[in-house]
Amino acid sequence: MNELRRDYFTDRWVIIATDRAKRPTDFVRPKPAEPAPLNCFFCPGNEGMTPPSKASYFDGRVLRCEADTEGLPPLTGWVVRAIPNLFPAVKPGEATMASTRQIAAAGVHEVIVETPEHFRQPQGMSDDEIRRLFTAYRDRFSEIARLPYVKYVSLFRNYGKEAGASLAHPHSQIIALPVVPEIVKEQYRHDYSPVIAQEETSGRLVAATQHTVAFAPFASPFPYGVWVFPRRPCKNIAELTDAERDDMAVVTRDVLARVAKLLGDPPYNYAFVQSMDVPLHMHLRIYPRLGIEAGFELNTGININSVPPESAAKSLREITL
Amino acid sequence: MNELRRDYFTDRWVIIATDRAKRPTDFVRPKPAEPAPLNCFFCPGNEGMTPPSKASYFDGRVLRCEADTEGLPPLTGWVVRAIPNLFPAVKPGEATMASTRQIAAAGVHEVIVETPEHFRQPQGMSDDEIRRLFTAYRDRFSEIARLPYVKYVSLFRNYGKEAGASLAHPHSQIIALPVVPEIVKEQYRHDYSPVIAQEETSGRLVAATQHTVAFAPFASPFPYGVWVFPRRPCKNIAELTDAERDDMAVVTRDVLARVAKLLGDPPYNYAFVQSMDVPLHMHLRIYPRLGIEAGFELNTGININSVPPESAAKSLREITL
Repeated sequence: MNELRRDYFTDRWVIIATDRAKRPTDFVRPKPAEPAPLNCFFCPGNEGMTPPSKASYFDGRVLRCEADTEGLPPLTGWVVRAIPNLFPAVKPGEATMASTRQIAAAGVHEVIVETPEHFRQPQGMSDDEIRRLFTAYRDRFSEIARLPYVKYVSLFRNYGKEAGASLAHPHSQIIALPVVPEIVKEQYRHDYSPVIAQEETSGRLVAATQHTVAFAPFASPFPYGVWVFPRRPCKNIAELTDAERDDMAVVTRDVLARVAKLLGDPPYNYAFVQSMDVPLHMHLRIYPRLGIEAGFELNTGININSVPPESAAKSLREITL
Repeated sequence: MNELRRDYFTDRWVIIATDRAKRPTDFVRPKPAEPAPLNCFFCPGNEGMTPPSKASYFDGRVLRCEADTEGLPPLTGWVVRAIPNLFPAVKPGEATMASTRQIAAAGVHEVIVETPEHFRQPQGMSDDEIRRLFTAYRDRFSEIARLPYVKYVSLFRNYGKEAGASLAHPHSQIIALPVVPEIVKEQYRHDYSPVIAQEETSGRLVAATQHTVAFAPFASPFPYGVWVFPRRPCKNIAELTDAERDDMAVVTRDVLARVAKLLGDPPYNYAFVQSMDVPLHMHLRIYPRLGIEAGFELNTGININSVPPESAAKSLREITL
């Protein structure tokens, strides 16, 4: 019989299909060849098509302007750029409360263009490239978390149309909010160290290094979901040491490469669970998007995961890169 | 500036895009002509291709077998059929607990084939047809809610591929669970009567009749989301009087027809929020599926709704059917 599994700390349940679990090949879909980039907003030479950068990384140096001020001139030669989103969900300003149920959406909505190369997704990046990206994550988080109206910084990535990416050029996003989401508060103050120790020997391990552990969570809501934890509890990416951050970057790239190889380069989302002040064990959640959440999931908050995390982890461990 | 809005009773927030709200026509997509049904499992004459019915409705009578026993012979002439799902997420049995975080997925997974007509979706049904469907909902709910291992009955509908429907023939589903989902518990004991009274004059009203009120909720997570409430608080569909249920059915059909006309027959989900024992004001939530929940939504639980509920309700009220 299938199982209902509950998350480590919250009351979120998931149905795990042990009865008729799907195989990795069940998810592989033909991918139409992506058209060549014509006037891609994020490609080099088109810097004038986006709002001015808040920060631009070059090999060996970074140029940045203060948050909430106008940006940099449209320089070329960058390797990573952080720019305001042209259609922001939230905007700098006062988080005025109209009532206890209504607040002005004050915040920051940035895009991090991860590389000048249109087809260089993180799953195909070199160690240096993925480390550079995580350094940019750290910098933008630190800059934005300082703003007085920011209570939570959501740092996430959408890859592929089915995962919500509207532009193909490699990019991540930051949406900083004037409230802390409930599902983040649910993560406050939990001790994940015993969980990490347990998952290293559970059969759900995907990768383990000096500073980082990646595993398929016991109650993963999505097939092939993987969580990447620094071993040392830190509240956010800015608290990691350079060595810890570099290691987490490379392990993340490694997991993404395994997912891409195993499942035919599927759409995915990843996002950091982190905190600015309250203790929380920051980590990254990677979720390939292989199905659709339908009426049952909306009604119950319970996902149906058609691949037991044990099988998912085994396949991800065993695939040859 | 955009707004963050909080749900009536829970701490669920939503970003409402007042800045650059989309118009109804922004969502209209070309719909490829659906192929004619060849060997549709749910079309008349193919009753032998599905598991035996648990209940079959004919004009003027209903044949049913006890839950947990084998089904009816493959009769023709039915107008509504309830059959076990061929690939069930949950199965009848003992809800054995392996641990506090792991339970056998004991339950019931049924499909309600809503009509013998392959192209007769609820948005195009007659008053009689939609009432008949809601009567079948009531009957199946009552039958399944009696089972000792059932703690929650999720009754929902997926329409269109993007809303998770894998078969085109009109059908609803029931997944009965051995646990009550957290997001249902959050609805326990709230007094929605003041909310309903307020929404009748808020500008978010979509329809109001003797027994039923439909409105775009203040913090709708989805564009054109509509909630349909019976005026009298009832825990579930079995507690409605025949008149209340008939009225709710017709108002629901009316809302679905407005959504279809306004937005080009979009994919949607609907589901009943209900309870078996604890007081709760049962209602139906209708959510057109016009976008994708991506990394931000997964990370924060906060949806970005690109149409203020006030605009959505106005468009839905004003469209001529």
